[in-house]
Amino acid sequence: MTEKETKNWEKFFRVTNSDEFDYAKFDPDATPGLSDREEAKAIQAVNTERMHDLQERLYAENKQALLIVLQALDTGGKDGAIRTIFGPLNPQGVQVTSFKVPSAQELAHDYLWRIHQHTPPKGMIGIFNRSHYEDVLVVKVHRLIDEKVVRKRYAQINAFEDHLQENGVKILKFHLCISRDEQRKRLQQRLDKPDKHWKFSRNDLAERARWDEYVEAYQAMLRNCSPASAPWYVIPANKKWYRNAIISQIVADTLAKMDPQFPPPEEGLDKIVIPE
Amino acid sequence: MTEKETKNWEKFFRVTNSDEFDYAKFDPDATPGLSDREEAKAIQAVNTERMHDLQERLYAENKQALLIVLQALDTGGKDGAIRTIFGPLNPQGVQVTSFKVPSAQELAHDYLWRIHQHTPPKGMIGIFNRSHYEDVLVVKVHRLIDEKVVRKRYAQINAFEDHLQENGVKILKFHLCISRDEQRKRLQQRLDKPDKHWKFSRNDLAERARWDEYVEAYQAMLRNCSPASAPWYVIPANKKWYRNAIISQIVADTLAKMDPQFPPPEEGLDKIVIPE
Repeated sequence: MTEKETKNWEKFFRVTNSDEFDYAKFDPDATPGLSDREEAKAIQAVNTERMHDLQERLYAENKQALLIVLQALDTGGKDGAIRTIFGPLNPQGVQVTSFKVPSAQELAHDYLWRIHQHTPPKGMIGIFNRSHYEDVLVVKVHRLIDEKVVRKRYAQINAFEDHLQENGVKILKFHLCISRDEQRKRLQQRLDKPDKHWKFSRNDLAERARWDEYVEAYQAMLRNCSPASAPWYVIPANKKWYRNAIISQIVADTLAKMDPQFPPPEEGLDKIVIPE
Repeated sequence: MTEKETKNWEKFFRVTNSDEFDYAKFDPDATPGLSDREEAKAIQAVNTERMHDLQERLYAENKQALLIVLQALDTGGKDGAIRTIFGPLNPQGVQVTSFKVPSAQELAHDYLWRIHQHTPPKGMIGIFNRSHYEDVLVVKVHRLIDEKVVRKRYAQINAFEDHLQENGVKILKFHLCISRDEQRKRLQQRLDKPDKHWKFSRNDLAERARWDEYVEAYQAMLRNCSPASAPWYVIPANKKWYRNAIISQIVADTLAKMDPQFPPPEEGLDKIVIPE
């Protein structure tokens, strides 16, 4: 691919509120702009270096934060993406939060209460494995709230994210999109490999049976929660190497745009000699 | 070194309450059992693999946690140890907490309140960059509490750690020990390298002037907070490669002893075929 095309990845996968993102037409198997695994690995390696350097600056600067939200259907690759893309970074500057079924205490509060507690502080990269978006996805699919509430929540979430971004927390949202058949293969693999059994639950089958409802919920959410300031990126994720290369590219480019700077040194440091 | 000696590292660097650990006699430049950087790097690489596999089991098992406490004088290498030793692990299973000067809210509570909030949940490895031990170190050196309170705190800390360990949180405590001259070199380097200026503060000089008082506080703490169930390990840390090899060895050995197991699969998984 040409360099021009590479630079358009961010735009290529970005969803906008104004368009009518069509889940049915999206190809999770596609690998636009990359010919093979080797090319993808090389791009990811470069981006790992870039992220590593930019992360140190972000931490030193201590003024901005980056929040990365990962959403996917079961087996979509959130865990793998976190391990592979963000594993090489300095763990001191990364905090991963996996949101599970809410606790009784969490349910006693509004649905953004627990989320807000885990937004990254200045200098940090926060990664959400699932997020507040579950409250317009699983909760919608299981009809725990009605459509009116869902629509209110889209607006509340947009407002919450605006608030975070106005206060120094840049947000990047990735939906890892896999096909129904790819999910079948991955679930079957979990059954076939004894050391992956722990990742399988019978409930996965019940959720898989609701595939079409999830797709509908994702489509509505993607269309309603992609303002220009905090768009979703839908990443073709059937091929892990493609997913990793594209996400690492968008994250590294975003950090570069945030342009974190080492803070200016105190005056007169050059005159100091450390005493014996 | 012989394999037998290697296996004794854990014992070699372990402090016990009954002995009279003598800080003045400890050599931070020593590298017992390892001849050079290459040998150390090879050992660390093996331990990285071991930790990686054991971490996955720990996470899958979801029954025990490991808490690693790092304490050192300024420039002792806590940040570097975290980046180098734990950087390669899955960030989803590691949480690093850096304890800074307590906030007003934290000061409104007892000194273990903020610590307890950051102990690792089941399945996780928690890393403390500084810890509750600051409350018997910096606080003692600056005479914010008197000796009677310090002695009470040793006992309270031992009791707190007992409680954690009885409830599934295994604790490993490492003091990275550098020499006064090594600190001088490292502080000078921060002054000499513009991209390290942000790590230097004039306050570091004031703290360095209290070197002997810190050594005294460390020695008292090490002697009083090393019960057989939760001993301190004092690691010679002038040579980073030695520090990294030894810590990775003790952590990997400890995880191996914790012996985390993949949970047993639900019954009848072998009969399931994932539907189209």
